[in-house]
Amino acid sequence: MERLYNFSPGPATLPRSVLEAAQRDLVVLPGIGASPLEVSHRSPWFREVIDEAVTNLRGLLAVPDPYHVVFCQGGATQQFSMVPMNLLRGADTEAEYVVTGSWGARAVHEAEKEGRVRIAWSGAAQGYTRVPASEEIARALSPAAAYVHVTTNETIEGVQWADVPAMPGDVPLIADSSSDFLSRPIDVGRFGLLYAGAQKNAGPAGVTIAIVRDDLLSSVPDGLPSMLDYRTFVEHGSMHNTPPVFAIYVVMLVTRWLRDEVGGLAEQARRNLEKAVLLYDAIDESEGFYRGHAEPSSRSLMNVTFRLASDDLDARFVAQAAERGLAGLKGHRRVGGIRASIYNAMPLEGVEALATFMESFARRPS
Amino acid sequence: MERLYNFSPGPATLPRSVLEAAQRDLVVLPGIGASPLEVSHRSPWFREVIDEAVTNLRGLLAVPDPYHVVFCQGGATQQFSMVPMNLLRGADTEAEYVVTGSWGARAVHEAEKEGRVRIAWSGAAQGYTRVPASEEIARALSPAAAYVHVTTNETIEGVQWADVPAMPGDVPLIADSSSDFLSRPIDVGRFGLLYAGAQKNAGPAGVTIAIVRDDLLSSVPDGLPSMLDYRTFVEHGSMHNTPPVFAIYVVMLVTRWLRDEVGGLAEQARRNLEKAVLLYDAIDESEGFYRGHAEPSSRSLMNVTFRLASDDLDARFVAQAAERGLAGLKGHRRVGGIRASIYNAMPLEGVEALATFMESFARRPS
Repeated sequence: MERLYNFSPGPATLPRSVLEAAQRDLVVLPGIGASPLEVSHRSPWFREVIDEAVTNLRGLLAVPDPYHVVFCQGGATQQFSMVPMNLLRGADTEAEYVVTGSWGARAVHEAEKEGRVRIAWSGAAQGYTRVPASEEIARALSPAAAYVHVTTNETIEGVQWADVPAMPGDVPLIADSSSDFLSRPIDVGRFGLLYAGAQKNAGPAGVTIAIVRDDLLSSVPDGLPSMLDYRTFVEHGSMHNTPPVFAIYVVMLVTRWLRDEVGGLAEQARRNLEKAVLLYDAIDESEGFYRGHAEPSSRSLMNVTFRLASDDLDARFVAQAAERGLAGLKGHRRVGGIRASIYNAMPLEGVEALATFMESFARRPS
Repeated sequence: MERLYNFSPGPATLPRSVLEAAQRDLVVLPGIGASPLEVSHRSPWFREVIDEAVTNLRGLLAVPDPYHVVFCQGGATQQFSMVPMNLLRGADTEAEYVVTGSWGARAVHEAEKEGRVRIAWSGAAQGYTRVPASEEIARALSPAAAYVHVTTNETIEGVQWADVPAMPGDVPLIADSSSDFLSRPIDVGRFGLLYAGAQKNAGPAGVTIAIVRDDLLSSVPDGLPSMLDYRTFVEHGSMHNTPPVFAIYVVMLVTRWLRDEVGGLAEQARRNLEKAVLLYDAIDESEGFYRGHAEPSSRSLMNVTFRLASDDLDARFVAQAAERGLAGLKGHRRVGGIRASIYNAMPLEGVEALATFMESFARRPS
């Protein structure tokens, strides 16, 4: 059975060598005598796994010392609540949200339950086609905010910040980085907290990675549910209770692959750009046959979104692509069209095959 | 490489045939073209997986119609908060907790953050060696309580209810069933809500199963974080956001094994009793060499806890057992001694090997 090229937005394609390593030891880990699905989280084996996962993440992202790397559960959606519970409850200021797509809007919805929220900028009226320009956002933000929240890449609309905005004063920048985490080098020092569901570039669904600056923990209010208090995860090394052992194990394998096989995030970013350019060129050179959703300056290197002249053509495109082993290209049900998610583990060959198909389908869309 | 007999309390041993099925398809699912670690949760494949997992659970436990079966994250510890957030916040009554071990005490700790809590009965002063007798608990409970919370099996102390207590009036019974879930038939109709971390009898760490009676949802207060509101999981079929796909897939495989290979929970209960009797007989026939922790009437069929005459003997027991391929026998760090966790997937042969070792070690503990 052949593997398809899987363009799904998450859960998403993983490196073949990672899957093969996980498969090899799935019934019994050599020297351990049990499956990674069975081993105690208090075992020396898992201690090494979680330590290496943290070390790999710190190394790949050059995480500065005053930051903690922890593993939570519940995906970005649980973080949408956890962030304001930890950083806004009891504050006498507002949190400011910059909304560049559907996920940012959902983050606002959860934050409003926990405290005072102000939407500093939103692309909703334009259909989420761009991020704000630097001067636009500089005018929009207040130095008195409890924090500013951004979504570094909007998975549904395919809108990505080329660079996150500068903060006024010492306002902490909080980022949902679920769908471009580990896709390129970032300056972690510019963030107060960033979080990412693993199921795009970092591993399987079922674990969420958070990187939090130590000083933010000092203002967390007491009395939060333990599993929604970042301090619980920091103090117990993500093991206050049983963590998602297998998902963290796969994150360790994926970050090891990024470190050893890819060679780091600069090289990964180069590959991701190369892949994205192929698809955006196919759009731009199609003379309007394919219409990109995002404005060129805000185009995502992870989720390439476009549509054809009709829903019917969209559907035929998706069906014919699937026949050629190009799977998962249907756009999100909320926006329609086509979405090609080309995360780290999508090989260049898969994107080349898609670009070739796009060209031939544009010539003869039957 | 041989598999050891893994007596860990959770994550815990899984059926070999489940591990082999998961291994076989880990790189690519036949007919799907992707790994179960990669497939979209919106795919027809996962739709079938989660539907079968729910159907299997409903069938095995004979779940009545007015109950929902949902998959959450965060383990029992997150449920410790979620239960009172949903069922106690805003109520003008108290929740009553029956505390028969360390996990019950942790449930109280989280509930106290959310509302008024009364400890109706606690075994703490006796070191958690038993559950209350029927007349004791009948006197302790009030018909005005918002709910009564019990822990059906205390994993750390090895204390289990043979049968859960009757409720006064129509007070909902809420149960943390993490460590005896699916180990025997139960009358789900006696519970308002029961929940279980999967990593003992139902699957790997990383998913929590909750079974909730529909009428309890009508009093859930608005404004809860979406990921902590049972209604979110009911309304979206556990897919408000990306669920832990792989963990649910393994739960499906485990429940299929229980249904097809074991033949149901009555047979599984018979096997579990047979295994537990072997170990408790080894304790009782040791003339005091092994001293059981729980009182005989409250002994757990899942976690057999005992100690030897000294910490040094405990340590030698654990070390020599490990040399014979009997792993994970060290008691919880909070209580010490020995703990043999003999969940559904622990084969009779493993328990026989442990009983034989117990007899020989008692004769020559050197």
